[in-house]
Amino acid sequence: MAAPGWEKIQEAHRRIAPRIHRTPVLRSATLDALSGASLFFKCENLQKTGSFKIRGASNAIFSLSDEEASRGIVTHSSGNHAAAVSCAAAWRGVPAWIVMPRNAPAVKSKAVEAYGGRITFCEPTVSARAEAAARLQAETGAVMIHPYDDDRIIAGQATAAVELLEETGELDAILAPVSGGGLLSGTALGARHLYPGIRLYGCEPAKADDAYRSLQTGRLEATESSDTIADGLRASLAPRTFAILRELLTGIVLVSEEEIIGAMELIWERLKVITEPSSAIALAPLLAAGARSLFEHTARPRVGIILSGGNVDLRALPFK
Amino acid sequence: MAAPGWEKIQEAHRRIAPRIHRTPVLRSATLDALSGASLFFKCENLQKTGSFKIRGASNAIFSLSDEEASRGIVTHSSGNHAAAVSCAAAWRGVPAWIVMPRNAPAVKSKAVEAYGGRITFCEPTVSARAEAAARLQAETGAVMIHPYDDDRIIAGQATAAVELLEETGELDAILAPVSGGGLLSGTALGARHLYPGIRLYGCEPAKADDAYRSLQTGRLEATESSDTIADGLRASLAPRTFAILRELLTGIVLVSEEEIIGAMELIWERLKVITEPSSAIALAPLLAAGARSLFEHTARPRVGIILSGGNVDLRALPFK
Repeated sequence: MAAPGWEKIQEAHRRIAPRIHRTPVLRSATLDALSGASLFFKCENLQKTGSFKIRGASNAIFSLSDEEASRGIVTHSSGNHAAAVSCAAAWRGVPAWIVMPRNAPAVKSKAVEAYGGRITFCEPTVSARAEAAARLQAETGAVMIHPYDDDRIIAGQATAAVELLEETGELDAILAPVSGGGLLSGTALGARHLYPGIRLYGCEPAKADDAYRSLQTGRLEATESSDTIADGLRASLAPRTFAILRELLTGIVLVSEEEIIGAMELIWERLKVITEPSSAIALAPLLAAGARSLFEHTARPRVGIILSGGNVDLRALPFK
Repeated sequence: MAAPGWEKIQEAHRRIAPRIHRTPVLRSATLDALSGASLFFKCENLQKTGSFKIRGASNAIFSLSDEEASRGIVTHSSGNHAAAVSCAAAWRGVPAWIVMPRNAPAVKSKAVEAYGGRITFCEPTVSARAEAAARLQAETGAVMIHPYDDDRIIAGQATAAVELLEETGELDAILAPVSGGGLLSGTALGARHLYPGIRLYGCEPAKADDAYRSLQTGRLEATESSDTIADGLRASLAPRTFAILRELLTGIVLVSEEEIIGAMELIWERLKVITEPSSAIALAPLLAAGARSLFEHTARPRVGIILSGGNVDLRALPFK
């Protein structure tokens, strides 16, 4: 397994900490009671650009030499990595070219434009994204910063779990969403270094279940296209993140669309923080009937949840 | 001026700190740029029961002797104090009788019921509330805990500004909403003790402008009834809060309904925290054309904003 080590994660944290928010860890007595666990929510939805993605993007972009950076950045993303790359590129004073799928939420493409990112829209498939980005890179000569198949990105994303554990001390488990696997890989690397016995669960929409299938079959499976409401979770694992997750992950829990919306509403009502569906998914397994099976032999487990982002169209909320 | 001194505020803080959240102080580069100030948002919308009111309510209820507490609590409130009293009474294991105006948001009356409070609805006027509560007190023999005309309440509410200033150090100003004046009086007492030169502004809906008029005329003026969207700001000052504000307040800024909604939307989009209209009002003066006049001679002032609550019906948002 090739993966960024603890030294790279610490280096990333030193690099990005002055530029980003130290996000709060929130708690809720009601959600504790509903889940039968003691929950610690790491609020990356309150992070700069509205998601954890600024951690990896700023680590990658500020790792570049001046010569590399001056050529600009190119990437593809359903939205949050796009905004984060645009923002970090603006901090560094270099241009960013962004490929986004046509079905990305308008609130996310607007954020990219607000940070000065130059958007090229493509068909909403994983392969169309990658092809469009490769073409743009060839045209511009810019540096490609892949949304997750990149050690600098994974090391950056790892810092959210490291901060969480600095505040909570040992936890029985951490739950995080999984799409391309950058956040989950980083979380696994950081958390297992600090607490080797910690349980690590990925939460994935049943409608975009490639990571679940990949871990079942032992082969990299793809979700070519999905219309899950969790618009940030439509990508598929890369070889790099698949290898890390195969080695470190405890398991993946599939979550239905209704469960995602239900968890999102509870977070809004109880934690009072704006959380996008792709982020609320990480609470859902703890509310389901089978939650106890995640924590056999542990009464009232202490569980960290990474709330990954808060970029959602306030005029098109899914609450019924 | 009769008011709780610094010793009472510290005593309140020691009493309630183990029971409540230490709420985070959030920042936003975008809101800083829009306001021309450095803003520090004390997020009492993330507080237990969804508002700062649990500070005063738990201070008052845990100050009672066992004999007093055993008689139960009675109060009147448009919603957030009602929920806070119900919650703190449940913590203490005693009953709470609550008078609420018929036009209180359903989300607030439901919260009271969830904490076990027993609601009596009344006409939506200031005098109808007080009369109904007095009647209930006579019937039940319970202890009246007024939502703001009470030193224990004011000392409790003061602790939000004290925590804010512990984190930020000296600020040029603090803005907070004003209704009955409990939060604003406490904020003024706590902040002026720590930083005698700090400027203190109350933010009030133009549609419920009794505090503004009271400070203008030097007489206690009333808003008998108001339909402002800021449903938590429909009450009027009491003699106790009026006396404190006359002595300590720098000024009151009136805010239109449109400005309240605009500020609320910016907070939701940028800070990613759920904030009710009564709370968002405290950002509005900093976005208005005349904002500079609040801070003559101070370039880029450091300003604290108390986000007082986050209890809002997610199915009836005012965003257009």
